[in-house]
Formats: sequence, C-alpha cells, structure tokens
Amino acid sequence: MRIGVLGTGIVGNTIGSTLVANGHDVCMGSRSATNPKAAAWARACGAAGHRGRATHGTFADAAAFGEVLFNCTAGAASLDALQAAGHENLRDRILIDVSNPLDFSKGMPPSLVICNTDSLGERIQAAFPEARVVKTLNTINCQVMVAPHRLPGDHVIFLSGNDPAAKQTVARLLDEWFGWEEGNIVDLGDITTARGPEMMLPLWVRLMFALGSADFNFNLVRAEPRPRAAREAINAVH
Amino acid sequence: MRIGVLGTGIVGNTIGSTLVANGHDVCMGSRSATNPKAAAWARACGAAGHRGRATHGTFADAAAFGEVLFNCTAGAASLDALQAAGHENLRDRILIDVSNPLDFSKGMPPSLVICNTDSLGERIQAAFPEARVVKTLNTINCQVMVAPHRLPGDHVIFLSGNDPAAKQTVARLLDEWFGWEEGNIVDLGDITTARGPEMMLPLWVRLMFALGSADFNFNLVRAEPRPRAAREAINAVH
Repeated sequence: MRIGVLGTGIVGNTIGSTLVANGHDVCMGSRSATNPKAAAWARACGAAGHRGRATHGTFADAAAFGEVLFNCTAGAASLDALQAAGHENLRDRILIDVSNPLDFSKGMPPSLVICNTDSLGERIQAAFPEARVVKTLNTINCQVMVAPHRLPGDHVIFLSGNDPAAKQTVARLLDEWFGWEEGNIVDLGDITTARGPEMMLPLWVRLMFALGSADFNFNLVRAEPRPRAAREAINAVH
Repeated sequence: MRIGVLGTGIVGNTIGSTLVANGHDVCMGSRSATNPKAAAWARACGAAGHRGRATHGTFADAAAFGEVLFNCTAGAASLDALQAAGHENLRDRILIDVSNPLDFSKGMPPSLVICNTDSLGERIQAAFPEARVVKTLNTINCQVMVAPHRLPGDHVIFLSGNDPAAKQTVARLLDEWFGWEEGNIVDLGDITTARGPEMMLPLWVRLMFALGSADFNFNLVRAEPRPRAAREAINAVH
C-alpha cells in the first residue's frame, strides 16, 4: 500500500519505518523537499533492507502519494502543514490524525492549544471537509502505537470520525499494520468525540513523570455481564 | 470515624450511605439545615439499620463534624459551598475532592468550567490554604467509587495533592472504607496534577454514551520489566 506520512519527528519516523519494514511504500512529507531529517529517514530505511520503499518530499508530495495519510506533525502546526499539502491532495483520503495540540511555550508540562469546546481533530475536519479524518492513536507513545504487544494483555485506543466506513478501514489497517486487535479499538463516535482523547494528554504527561516511563497505556475495564441463568437464579433466591 | 459529606446528590448519597453502613458517623451538609434530600437520606440510613449514625445539617455543620471531609457538591458550585462551610471548619481537615467542574448549561455532553491551565482541585486548595485537599475518585461513577470490586480485576484511581501525609492517609482510608488496593492508587503529584484526571471527563462521558453504561474504569497497563538474567541472556545471544 502507498502511505503518506506528514511530519519528520519521532512519531512520523516510527510509523513510517514500521510500515516500510512491513513492505509498504511510504513517502514522508515536510515543509521542504530537501528536509535533511526526512532524507536521513529514507536512507536509514534503505540501509535496513526493508521490503517497502521509503521516499520523501513536500507535504503535497506525500499527500498526493498516499492512499492513506498519517498526520504526524506537531499539533500546533498541523493546520498549516495540511494547507501546504493542498485540498486536492486530501480529497477522499483517509487522514489518520495522531497529533496532539500541545503548547510547550510555557515549559513543562505542556497545556493544550485547543480543548474543551473544540479539538484539533474537529478543526482539521472543518478546514478540510474533503478529507476523511479519523482521530486515533494520540493517547499513547509512538513505540506503543506501532507495537501494542510490547505491553502485556489488552489495552485500548479510540476512534473518532464522521465517516463510519473510514473508521472501519482504519481499524482493519491498525490491526494489519501494527497488531491492534478489533476488541481493543473503541469507536467513540463522530469527530467531536476527539476532545476526549486529546484532553487525556495532561494526564498522560503527568503519568509519564510519575512512572518515569512512556511505556504505558490504559485498558478499559467493564462490569462483566452476569449470565442470564445466574441472574434468574439470584432473582429466585432473593 | 466522623465524616462530613458536602453535597446531597447521588455521589454524596452513595458515599455517605456506604460509610454509615460500615459503622462510621456521617453528617451530610447542604445549603440549608432542613434540606429534604439530606433529611430523607438520614432517615433511609436509619431505616436500613446501618451501624453508623447518619445526621444532616448545613455545610458548616458537616465540616465542623467531620474528621475527614468529602466534597461531593457539583463542581461549578463547590467554591461557594466550601465558603459556606467556613475557613475555620476546614482548618487542617483532609478534604477529599471528588467533584468535577462540569458545565451542563449548553446541554450534553458537558464541557468543563475550568481546565487546561487550572483545575477545580487547584482552585479549592488556593481558596482554602488551611485545608489539606486531595483530589481523587473523580474519574469514575460513584457506584465504582465505593465498590471497586464490582469491576473485574485491577483498575486505577489517581491522587493529586500538596500534602504527602494527607495522600497517604486518604489511600489507606480508601482501601479500608471501599476496598481500593494500594497498587491501584496512583499518586500523580501535587495539586496541579488534578488537571489530568479532571480533563478525563470528556472522554468518560463519551465512553458512557458509546458503552451504554457508566460501569467502567481504566486499568494502567505497563511494560513488564524484563528480569536481569533474561536480559543478559538475550544480550549474549544477539
């Protein structure tokens, strides 16, 4: 599959390398066609003998290349990056938004540039109505994004988006690419539900400090439905 | 133990009843000494033959009564309620703040009145520096607060507060009163860390919609540390 990865940071790098290692062709996009970090990433993929092909170019090049796109840019710069990618290149594309609108300008811990009555996921979908935005994976470190099995047992990620078919496709691809099992992907609803996962970041950052590690996630624990027969037996006794 | 519960809603009701059932004496406080909901709660506890004593009164009565206090008022009204309780009645008291600054004025889902660069926990500690504020339990439904074992296996709550001894006491009491095991109580740090758990509410509300149930919580899943011997063996092979 051809995948466009927007962003040259650790998140784009990790997702891009994993996809190329698994035989997919990835174009990493950035502001400039000659970005040295993107070039180094493509060289490293080549040197590693990965089965897929790693290339790089502008945001527009990557968006035009990909059948599916990842937004791995810094959240505060995502709308500009997507503007540079171009509306035509985003048309009907599934855009997997893993970014967070973090504001590091006042030091650590970061606050959010957008939250509460809006979210970055919503802003992106509103600014690019021709794209099929699916917010997901933003609640975990990129090492966990591409390898959920590095943590023991079940743990969950969330999906937010207006297009049910796009969410279904993303859920299937996240399983195929990275090993996210269907039962551990929770569909929250439309793109306004992205507020919830984005607003988890303040907890995530403080937990990272408290645990001294970014290698964690949450599992969803639900009451076990009591089997009907057992419930009837209880009703009969009480 | 004598416990003051501020607030007459479902949360105060559930916490108060559980404590009285377990033999503690609880005074439920509200704006008025003759609040019919508080009176009905006290009567119901009496009728249930609970071992503890249930009384009710003003916010000031409840705060003066309790060795430990619970803030179970609606978050948007908490500062006013605590003002009515009175600074002298809060002096040196452990104030367990389980409230959330939810804004229902624009309908469902609620947004937050305070978030991102501040939290209700911080506002309370700043307004009442004589109290020992511990933010906890606000990330779960009150049924789960008082009975963690209704959900299968491990799942976590958080502690935020400036007073380490107060947090230790609260952790011990939450185990003794409700069955929260030490390993499932995560100390995030000072009261500014309350932003994280309070900002989980938008996700919690959307999950409640998606699951059709409030009977859930999160467990923290961490990478299992690899035993040293195994790691050395791997190093020797590779």
